[in-house]
Amino acid sequence: MSTALLVLDCQPAVLAALPADADREALLDRLARAAAEVRAAGGTVVHVRAGFTEADWDAVPAANRAFAPIAEYRALHHEDPATAVHERLAPRDGDLVVRKTRFGALSTTGLDRRLRERGVSALVVAGLTTSGAVLSTVLDAADRDYRLAVLSDGVADPDAQAHEVLLRRVLPTRAQVVGTAGLAALLGGG
Amino acid sequence: MSTALLVLDCQPAVLAALPADADREALLDRLARAAAEVRAAGGTVVHVRAGFTEADWDAVPAANRAFAPIAEYRALHHEDPATAVHERLAPRDGDLVVRKTRFGALSTTGLDRRLRERGVSALVVAGLTTSGAVLSTVLDAADRDYRLAVLSDGVADPDAQAHEVLLRRVLPTRAQVVGTAGLAALLGGG
Repeated sequence: MSTALLVLDCQPAVLAALPADADREALLDRLARAAAEVRAAGGTVVHVRAGFTEADWDAVPAANRAFAPIAEYRALHHEDPATAVHERLAPRDGDLVVRKTRFGALSTTGLDRRLRERGVSALVVAGLTTSGAVLSTVLDAADRDYRLAVLSDGVADPDAQAHEVLLRRVLPTRAQVVGTAGLAALLGGG
Repeated sequence: MSTALLVLDCQPAVLAALPADADREALLDRLARAAAEVRAAGGTVVHVRAGFTEADWDAVPAANRAFAPIAEYRALHHEDPATAVHERLAPRDGDLVVRKTRFGALSTTGLDRRLRERGVSALVVAGLTTSGAVLSTVLDAADRDYRLAVLSDGVADPDAQAHEVLLRRVLPTRAQVVGTAGLAALLGGG
């Protein structure tokens, strides 16, 4: 079994968009435990974060509905501490850290190649946000034939209704949807 | 303006999964009119259909949740008339026809390259199904920086709730969502 846990966009700037602070803390706890479990099982933890250089901002066309405003307002600079991986999930030795400039973790990065080089064929997707990076990454990875799981209590979205419908009706067509409590079985079960 | 209308998976085998026959006929009517409008405005109509050769089936890994059963049951053979573009939408001279073997219209095909070669930078996405090929194609195309529109009354899904939430809450983050009645303004507004 060669599994990677993708922890998407757990950066202060993105976490801030979630509604309740209490939920945010609990989410970070669950993700930290999930990352520890994956490391202990010999899997790879991948931290994916959004962050922009000047050149990245300049490369976003006005046609890109979600990212044109980020470029226009020079938001999410890659050196801004608000775009760093949250300190509760700080990368450990052996983890991968990937910077991206669009929704998907695979679409505009070298991550797919790096995962294949390590023999990773199964991805567990977690982090933010369910309708954003999580959805884009899962749908892309599904067409790339990865074995996929999504951590139902390890993802979140400011839009409760979209979150709920995606987890119950859409993501299950591409991925196994399991709670973090079920991660050990998933890692043990090849 | 260089726009392509992508008509996804309007094949008897996929249309059959929709609930009501009446709705299906009206949908095909709207799509045929949309295609005529796009051709008249000098845009490209692209028919994308799912269809498998023996080698395609053999290449689907068991890990692919949605496509492994299709491979297992040898479904959607590329020469089966049920996988042809529906006769009401029969391709005309100048249209493109693309065969795919996963959800996305761009993910496993040469379509992205063919569109770029023609200078196409704007896509209008329609067809089936909202939570399947439409969603995967729109999210992929968004990260590829296409200007995107989705035809709200030109897409459909057997799951009414997923259809509704995707159109109202998720797709608008990546695409303009407009009715087919608004297509002319969209084509004129380059």
